[in-house]
Amino acid sequence: MDDAMENGMGSYQERPRTFPSMRSKSHYPLIFRMLLGINARVLLVLLLLIFGAVFYVGASTSPIVIFVFSICIISFFFSVYLTKWVLAKDEGPPEMVQISEAIRDGAEGFFRTQYGTISKMAMVLALAILGIYLFRSTTPQQESSGLSRSTSAYITVAAFLLGALCSGIAGYIGMWVSVRANVRVSSAARRSAREALQIAVRAGGLSAIVVVGMAVIGVAVLYATFYVFLEVDSPGSMKVTDLPLLLVGYGFGASFVALFAQLGGGIFTKAADVGADLVGKVEQGIPEDDPRNPAVIADLVGDNVGDCAARGADLFESIAAEIISAMILGGTMAQRCKLEDPSGFILFPLVVHSFDLVVSSIGILSIRGTRDPGIIVPIEDPMAILQKGYSVTIVLAVLTFGVSTRWLLYTEQAPSAWLNFALCGLVGIMTAYAFVWITKYYTDYKHEPVRVLALSSATGHGTNIIAGVSLGLESTALPVLVISIAIISAYWLGNTSGLVDESGSPTGGLFGTAVATMGMLSTAAYVLTMDMFGPIADNAGGIVEMSQQPESVREITDVLDAVGNTTKATTKGFAIGSAALASFLLFSAYMDEVASFAHVSFKEVDIAIPEVFVGGLLGSMLIFVFSAWACSAVGRTAQEVVNEVRRQFLERPGIMEYQEKPDYGRCVAIVASASLREMIKPGALATISPVVIGFIFRLLGHYTGQPLLGAKVVASMLMFATVAGILMALFLNTAGGAWDNAKKYIETGALGGKGSDCHKAAVTGDTVGDPFKDTAGPSLHVLIKMLATITLVMAPVFL
Amino acid sequence: MDDAMENGMGSYQERPRTFPSMRSKSHYPLIFRMLLGINARVLLVLLLLIFGAVFYVGASTSPIVIFVFSICIISFFFSVYLTKWVLAKDEGPPEMVQISEAIRDGAEGFFRTQYGTISKMAMVLALAILGIYLFRSTTPQQESSGLSRSTSAYITVAAFLLGALCSGIAGYIGMWVSVRANVRVSSAARRSAREALQIAVRAGGLSAIVVVGMAVIGVAVLYATFYVFLEVDSPGSMKVTDLPLLLVGYGFGASFVALFAQLGGGIFTKAADVGADLVGKVEQGIPEDDPRNPAVIADLVGDNVGDCAARGADLFESIAAEIISAMILGGTMAQRCKLEDPSGFILFPLVVHSFDLVVSSIGILSIRGTRDPGIIVPIEDPMAILQKGYSVTIVLAVLTFGVSTRWLLYTEQAPSAWLNFALCGLVGIMTAYAFVWITKYYTDYKHEPVRVLALSSATGHGTNIIAGVSLGLESTALPVLVISIAIISAYWLGNTSGLVDESGSPTGGLFGTAVATMGMLSTAAYVLTMDMFGPIADNAGGIVEMSQQPESVREITDVLDAVGNTTKATTKGFAIGSAALASFLLFSAYMDEVASFAHVSFKEVDIAIPEVFVGGLLGSMLIFVFSAWACSAVGRTAQEVVNEVRRQFLERPGIMEYQEKPDYGRCVAIVASASLREMIKPGALATISPVVIGFIFRLLGHYTGQPLLGAKVVASMLMFATVAGILMALFLNTAGGAWDNAKKYIETGALGGKGSDCHKAAVTGDTVGDPFKDTAGPSLHVLIKMLATITLVMAPVFL
Repeated sequence: MDDAMENGMGSYQERPRTFPSMRSKSHYPLIFRMLLGINARVLLVLLLLIFGAVFYVGASTSPIVIFVFSICIISFFFSVYLTKWVLAKDEGPPEMVQISEAIRDGAEGFFRTQYGTISKMAMVLALAILGIYLFRSTTPQQESSGLSRSTSAYITVAAFLLGALCSGIAGYIGMWVSVRANVRVSSAARRSAREALQIAVRAGGLSAIVVVGMAVIGVAVLYATFYVFLEVDSPGSMKVTDLPLLLVGYGFGASFVALFAQLGGGIFTKAADVGADLVGKVEQGIPEDDPRNPAVIADLVGDNVGDCAARGADLFESIAAEIISAMILGGTMAQRCKLEDPSGFILFPLVVHSFDLVVSSIGILSIRGTRDPGIIVPIEDPMAILQKGYSVTIVLAVLTFGVSTRWLLYTEQAPSAWLNFALCGLVGIMTAYAFVWITKYYTDYKHEPVRVLALSSATGHGTNIIAGVSLGLESTALPVLVISIAIISAYWLGNTSGLVDESGSPTGGLFGTAVATMGMLSTAAYVLTMDMFGPIADNAGGIVEMSQQPESVREITDVLDAVGNTTKATTKGFAIGSAALASFLLFSAYMDEVASFAHVSFKEVDIAIPEVFVGGLLGSMLIFVFSAWACSAVGRTAQEVVNEVRRQFLERPGIMEYQEKPDYGRCVAIVASASLREMIKPGALATISPVVIGFIFRLLGHYTGQPLLGAKVVASMLMFATVAGILMALFLNTAGGAWDNAKKYIETGALGGKGSDCHKAAVTGDTVGDPFKDTAGPSLHVLIKMLATITLVMAPVFL
Repeated sequence: MDDAMENGMGSYQERPRTFPSMRSKSHYPLIFRMLLGINARVLLVLLLLIFGAVFYVGASTSPIVIFVFSICIISFFFSVYLTKWVLAKDEGPPEMVQISEAIRDGAEGFFRTQYGTISKMAMVLALAILGIYLFRSTTPQQESSGLSRSTSAYITVAAFLLGALCSGIAGYIGMWVSVRANVRVSSAARRSAREALQIAVRAGGLSAIVVVGMAVIGVAVLYATFYVFLEVDSPGSMKVTDLPLLLVGYGFGASFVALFAQLGGGIFTKAADVGADLVGKVEQGIPEDDPRNPAVIADLVGDNVGDCAARGADLFESIAAEIISAMILGGTMAQRCKLEDPSGFILFPLVVHSFDLVVSSIGILSIRGTRDPGIIVPIEDPMAILQKGYSVTIVLAVLTFGVSTRWLLYTEQAPSAWLNFALCGLVGIMTAYAFVWITKYYTDYKHEPVRVLALSSATGHGTNIIAGVSLGLESTALPVLVISIAIISAYWLGNTSGLVDESGSPTGGLFGTAVATMGMLSTAAYVLTMDMFGPIADNAGGIVEMSQQPESVREITDVLDAVGNTTKATTKGFAIGSAALASFLLFSAYMDEVASFAHVSFKEVDIAIPEVFVGGLLGSMLIFVFSAWACSAVGRTAQEVVNEVRRQFLERPGIMEYQEKPDYGRCVAIVASASLREMIKPGALATISPVVIGFIFRLLGHYTGQPLLGAKVVASMLMFATVAGILMALFLNTAGGAWDNAKKYIETGALGGKGSDCHKAAVTGDTVGDPFKDTAGPSLHVLIKMLATITLVMAPVFL
């Protein structure tokens, strides 16, 4: 390939055609046109105005809310600083800029169309929620809380729409940053590895701070607004401990958008990647990101829409869902224990994530450019630099977590409770560490599993796949043990905290688990930074390759890319671990919600009842079918790409000789329209089936005289789906990551190196792993949380 | 290959060396030496004497038991007739006999070693059970029933050992028949397709009748013996409704042996198959079962030990477990409803399976040889013939099921109850039909899914695997829906049967589900016949190929082999469907057992308790890790085979020219020792983990003041493992079957046909599918039932 390049022409004067069919559509939803129309400065002023208003509202709620607001606003200023810093960097030579613009056009075009579709679906769903809430019969809970039917309907719908909107913005920001940072990283890589690393980290950090900050402030604003609007805690109206239940709409909106963002983006990125690899690497033997490959721009666009946009939405909803479920549990516990001032327990999650913003910002800043630019230093291991930053963040997080527990969870009823909860937080932080370590063990080629997998490629494609599937299935064991120990020990710590209800029995258990989850997520912004770093580095590498920079530049971006792969894999471990804990909390919140709606005790989900067992069967099945559809969507779309790329190579033989420019836009358009089409089926399955199943069993229960049958079946479905989802996601993520790195290991020269039969078998494994680890796996993270929030919001349908 | 064959020498005078290392071991357990030492006639006389003795015992129990005994004995005579009929067929020319003897030696050698290992483990486990039962504290239940601690211990251990022994015999008979029938089918194929079919069916039928008959008579004998020995129903001693609980040891023994038989056999057969294919088909391009392939005898041996022996043990334990769980539920229900004569409800499953023996025998006999041997008839579709036999069996089964319900389930307390239960049986039979149909839809290349899968091979190995995995995951949906409808409707039919307990609430629901399970299994012997038919035909084809018979003979065995593949796939659907229903019953039986042991109500498994949720996580994880280990065992062993076969081809170039005879024995020895080694890890995991988890949580419950925590966690573990196991088995079986048939479809000439790139990709899929569908999948069927029985027997550890 290197020989061929020298006599190539390599000119990219024309900008590639970027699916005009999409541009011609002018009927985007108003909200998106508005958002995309205003520039960053106007947005900022607008945000500041809104902040001022809610600050006033917050002041009448609790000083804690003021604290949270302040931190969030400081963080936004910090992110503006980061934005300016990143944008001030040069974009490099024109050929880089052109490629970057092609990527940006592709990504933004897809984003618009995708979010146009998603927003339409969200509107329909909002109307459905409105209808359900308006026409259901009034429950005793509503009467007692003074909430009228229509108020409750409007509140839920408003929260849902705000959650959906914020989730969309989070995704947009993730993508906005990455399509601008990629070319700057490429350009910096021509000068210094350290600078390139710093730009990628700060760009990643910028979106991470915004995403986390938005999740926190969104919940805080809703909380404060509802508090004031509903005159909470005044006589005859709602108690503050019931308030968090009204926020679930926000979580549902966030996860609904995140699910479709992850599905659409995941299908896009992996279909393009698999299609590009199958023809480019396997059939034609040209390297990754080679400009001759017609699918290469689609692949680079995919990194932005699949990894950056989708992961932004994903982490946003993770944090939102986890904050809300912890607030609900805090409220319930405070009520049971008859605490004098429950607000500390309710607002604790917001404070934890405010500190998260602070400590992660420090962690991001701790990664600095080279101090002596005059001295030529050898390329340092970027992983070590990132991990140093992580260590800084984690140490600070432990300290601030201790401070938060002492500040908010100290109560005279149980003076040592805060210490127990601090220990719960420590359990969470250690769990996060363990997850990251286990994922690394199973997916890094420094360790045995991937070595064994690479070795199994030597006997062919078949044994490689068998070994990878086994590795993935086996890798579920340790995370499950860790999460089991975490759940039980945090529960025990909570239960022995000294907090007791009226009858004297301990009640802090579930809240202990919630605190552990918060501990796990207490460095979320830094983890998200590392995660966002990956696709930015990947894109930068692609731009360097496509603009045909010298070998030394490519070496730098290759190293960054490899580190990005590792951080992406490990943060997936982190994401699934926190999803597992969060879902367990949401499940408890669901039971509280049902009990509160139906005004009966709902403490047990008895799987010995046939219908409830069937609910479990259906829930697990949902996970299997959802994964099937997500994977097959990638497979089908990739086949379209393969056929298109083959066609271009066949019809335009000049492409391989650098005589002709491939039609990049056509591949982008194919992938974009296919992934929009393909995301609907699994997404609809996930959204509709819990509602339908709950409703059917509610009717069945009605006719067979089993009260609450619908709610019980949905609870069991949720629980089994959570368990199956965690295991399936662990399997898919780990198998995919291991296959990827087994291939990389062979590419380092082991077992015959590039081009050997062994390498070909490993590439097959990598191809299979792509939809596993980047489409189905991450979609499952979102799915299991969306199932929990949808059941919370849709509970009236089952009751 | 055909050209090459003509100048080959093809002489096989020497008998291949069959791992002498195994023969040298003379310290087989006594019981096996005895069993293998006596000849068939002595065995028969011995059996008759035992029958006489138990007949006498049975006479003092219930006339129903006498009926069951009589049918079983008639069936044994029928199977003796079939044996004589099969053995009277000629064995063909000496070259066939020699190959057949090599297969027989390999299979019997492996069987001896494998069952030697298994029997040692069973002994250790028996001692452990004895210890547990002897040293546990006396429970209130024991006191009230007048069972002393040591009596209960000896009864459980005796039942366990009898179950293990019978399971071993069932496996041995399956193999004994198939290694003798294979060569006779090959020989008959030289004369007539119809005769070959008839021999294969009758040989399969012979083992099926013995296996089912042994399961029935084993339970009946234990029941009658315990009845007389414990003076059941006399004042101050045990009630007959509690008696079935004492039989669980039998089920546990059967499933323990079946699990290891299936694991060891499954690893053996697929490692040999994958290894043979990877080098023979893919690398060297020689056809399947080519005599030049050093692993070909190992592959043929594998069919016998993996498919025949293991499936015999598997179906034996299915029927035993299902009979016992239905008896327990029948007893419980009879007790709750205070029925005057509960024996009908308890003995109902035995009668259903007695009729099963009768109707299946008629079905087997309905497949006749050609009536006019003078007229040359075109080769008929053997599938149509088998299905005609199945239709005959099913029609008769529906009739006899109706008769059984009227006879045994009629009670004056609820005169129409029997009709409801007859309908439950119909639900079961329809479920079986639906499962067979769904499996066919997803695995037969006449339908869309396999066609789409074949098409995806056109774009490479990677897309083939992605499509196959998606197909398998998706194929879980319909079976889950069917089983859900079956469980709920049978439960509802049972509940509305009119049977009520003292408080007037309906109690027949669970028993209704049990009756549906029996309906599903009411043609088990015929289904097992079709299943056994597969490997016999497969082996016959191998012998024909190896002894280099003319093309026309091979055509006949190829057709039989293809039909065998279809019947194998569909009976797997049947097996998993019945396993799903049976596990749900065993779960209920477990809860009854715990309640009865602990003398407290144990009706609920509340998954909202963290420990119970963790139990579910661990249970699902167990399934994933077990599948991983089963698959990776095949992968690892196959790699050893690949290396050995490659070495032989390299070191002895004469093999490919038919100048030199490959060393078959070495491959057999490698596979045999590897599969013995590899079966231990997954088997031990399955056996030990429920006990350890139950014990740990019992301790935890003790220290945190939660009574019955161990039992609850185990219950949840069991339930989640069942659900995950059903889904995983469906996924593995269907994906494997679909890959196999996609390859076969391409081999018919579609999409480029044999040797094309598309075919190579399809072969990769087939290789991956092999351990899925023949090792991990069927082992999971056994596993989920073994988990249920082990928890029943080991309950004292958790309480």
